Amino acid sequence: MSDHVFQAPKGTRDFFPPETAARRHIEAAWRSASIDSGFEEIEGPTFEHLELYTVKSGEGIVNELFSFTRAGGESTYALRPEFTPTLARMAAARGSQLPQPIKWFTIPNMFRAERPQRGRLREFVQWNVDLLGAGGPEADAEVISVALLSLERLGLTARDVQVRLSHREAVATLLRSLGVAPDSLPKAFELLDRRAKMPPAEFAKRAGELGLAADEVARLDAAAGRPIALAETPDRIAAALSLPEGELASLLALRERLVALGLAEWCVIDLGIVRGLAYYTGTVFEIHDAGQAERAIAGGGRYDTLVGLFGGPAMPACGFGMGDVVLSLVLAEKGLLGGKDGGAALLPRPDAFLISAGDPAAEAALPRLVGELRRAGLHVRHPYKATRNVGKLLGDAAKCRAHAAVILGAEVAEGIAAVKDLASGEQAPVPIAELAATLRARRAAREAAR
Amino acid sequence: MSDHVFQAPKGTRDFFPPETAARRHIEAAWRSASIDSGFEEIEGPTFEHLELYTVKSGEGIVNELFSFTRAGGESTYALRPEFTPTLARMAAARGSQLPQPIKWFTIPNMFRAERPQRGRLREFVQWNVDLLGAGGPEADAEVISVALLSLERLGLTARDVQVRLSHREAVATLLRSLGVAPDSLPKAFELLDRRAKMPPAEFAKRAGELGLAADEVARLDAAAGRPIALAETPDRIAAALSLPEGELASLLALRERLVALGLAEWCVIDLGIVRGLAYYTGTVFEIHDAGQAERAIAGGGRYDTLVGLFGGPAMPACGFGMGDVVLSLVLAEKGLLGGKDGGAALLPRPDAFLISAGDPAAEAALPRLVGELRRAGLHVRHPYKATRNVGKLLGDAAKCRAHAAVILGAEVAEGIAAVKDLASGEQAPVPIAELAATLRARRAAREAAR
Repeated sequence: MSDHVFQAPKGTRDFFPPETAARRHIEAAWRSASIDSGFEEIEGPTFEHLELYTVKSGEGIVNELFSFTRAGGESTYALRPEFTPTLARMAAARGSQLPQPIKWFTIPNMFRAERPQRGRLREFVQWNVDLLGAGGPEADAEVISVALLSLERLGLTARDVQVRLSHREAVATLLRSLGVAPDSLPKAFELLDRRAKMPPAEFAKRAGELGLAADEVARLDAAAGRPIALAETPDRIAAALSLPEGELASLLALRERLVALGLAEWCVIDLGIVRGLAYYTGTVFEIHDAGQAERAIAGGGRYDTLVGLFGGPAMPACGFGMGDVVLSLVLAEKGLLGGKDGGAALLPRPDAFLISAGDPAAEAALPRLVGELRRAGLHVRHPYKATRNVGKLLGDAAKCRAHAAVILGAEVAEGIAAVKDLASGEQAPVPIAELAATLRARRAAREAAR
Repeated sequence: MSDHVFQAPKGTRDFFPPETAARRHIEAAWRSASIDSGFEEIEGPTFEHLELYTVKSGEGIVNELFSFTRAGGESTYALRPEFTPTLARMAAARGSQLPQPIKWFTIPNMFRAERPQRGRLREFVQWNVDLLGAGGPEADAEVISVALLSLERLGLTARDVQVRLSHREAVATLLRSLGVAPDSLPKAFELLDRRAKMPPAEFAKRAGELGLAADEVARLDAAAGRPIALAETPDRIAAALSLPEGELASLLALRERLVALGLAEWCVIDLGIVRGLAYYTGTVFEIHDAGQAERAIAGGGRYDTLVGLFGGPAMPACGFGMGDVVLSLVLAEKGLLGGKDGGAALLPRPDAFLISAGDPAAEAALPRLVGELRRAGLHVRHPYKATRNVGKLLGDAAKCRAHAAVILGAEVAEGIAAVKDLASGEQAPVPIAELAATLRARRAAREAAR
């Protein structure tokens, strides 16, 4: 048997405790931003019928999937590459019975059979937030605000990340104003989507094939490549895009709502954001690190026709996905993922580390007391070493970042332990009967002080 | 396209918000019991190289796995059917660098390509707790105590569930005392493992083939089928098993530790618990509902040779797995999974539901205030309806189980809102500038009262 069997498969990750702590830290920000914003959590199967993915994305997606058939082969399944088809299936199944709007989030693992590279793995975690059954700029702005709330809680600011906003309607208006024929619009969207990935000359050549003159290509290039601050006034935004204000109604209504919510500084208008082809129907957005050194941190938009496509009622919908891989790179680069120590600084800290000084009464009391304190909801550790050298064991208590050490000495016979605060170094006798209450009060005080 | 595509694959589950809340409730008990007991969380890939599973379980396991090969086919992978091989691989990779004992837990999804039935699905969640690098009854008892801590936090008592304990050494002693030859021991273990699944006559016949006389079969049957309370004294336990106390040293040492920890009432000795074949090396245990109406809630034991098998250092190890499927059935049956309403009663409750009575100042203030309160860490909802009928909207606030409603009326112009406590019905004016502090204080008071 070769050694590779003893390694995680290519493009997947082993999460030792520090890496898991970092992942839990990100997920906690995602979950609390979702719940505080009134979204409810759902989960779905890790694999679905393969056809569920080809409905939305066509047969072309099959090569990007891990798919399998059982021996005896009733069905072909695929590991989920994204959550939206599952969401649309679930919304289609129950959508007409549930009060609307439906506000759902989920934090599943996902899988893509691609070549792993920076910011892109074969298995990753992706937070999905979706608001179904409500249209309009209010819903779009609410979805964007949830994404920003989580990033703010992770310590990022408007100087670190930027929402790049576009709207299908504004882009169509722009393309039509440049003389793109209605039936060439899909091709023009596709070209715009690939713009960043091709040399300017090739972009100009292909735009020419769609009927654009050289100056029109330049205008498209400018509109797609020069983000406009959302804090700009509507007339200046229209002027920057060389379009009449009246034909940018949807984009400007979203802008107005985001400004009212105090989120303008986080956002720019960037008509170069397309996010693929036929899926989105209105607002589209991506969140990028301000330096644009990495891939997109998040992407989403409005998809009003999708739930219907999965057999459900017609239902307006808006949502986004945010993966853990790029976000982790951005956070780590800014020292926001446990600082220099990495995730180790994010590991849960014990309320107490219990030490016996070696007296028989203390030896007998320790395991029982450990159990009692844990049952009281406290995080409690104890040494596994044979030594009863209290100084050495206090070192172990500090190493696991315990808040306090509880030292059981000869006074255990009188029902007394010593509690040493490992931050201040102060030590005081505490009746063993009051240990749980004392440690809980200390925890409450720490939490209140944060 | 057929309709089955729009359903979750056979043996997998869609988790709508109430079911997700129930799942989170169970996971929270698992996670807090683990962390409070000093275990640190890890995660691994959802799929591994297929050979990782055949190392431990032989080729026979392949039929129970969902396995797949990529087009171009570097490797064959399998969705993980259990976590232990991943754990052993990770421990083998880092085990010699990490301080010991290593105390790890994980809560992954797992997959088995079996026929779905009650208590057994194709995709499920399984909590794994493992203590590596420490042997002896103290480590075994600590692992068992973590399992019980989680069940206690979920509301179960020693009347609801039972740990059924056995020990390879005690079973081997029993079998040898009945005249089973040393080289027949593996076959005898296998027979004992299948005992519950065969008619008594077949058990007797097969035991006879291993050289047991009729009275010896009866003694084996009794020892395997008649659990002994752990609170019994060692001499009575030995007598019940017709074995000398001195030859039950390991089992009785574990008993003594569990008694010292105050866990005796949760446990029985049951030498009929075998848990498969060559894997475990000492203590084995299962946790069952007291009525034994369901499959095992959890199972585990000591496996001192496994990390070495995966290329790591020799390392004593003890652990267990507890799945969500059987546990959910047991909890629901006892009304401990959100009561009559199911998981709906476990959904997060909003701190406040914000209502505008329709005045323009209130209309303008509401979305901004919603954003501010969410940024202050509060769970806040608001209506999406066009109506401004406060009575109707208060009904919506109650429906989503908000603790309070914040009513924005004409007094918004003076910076005042009304806060209505939806439990007591009491309503009081609160300066808008103090809303976040007021709602946070109410939340803190609720948490302190629990």
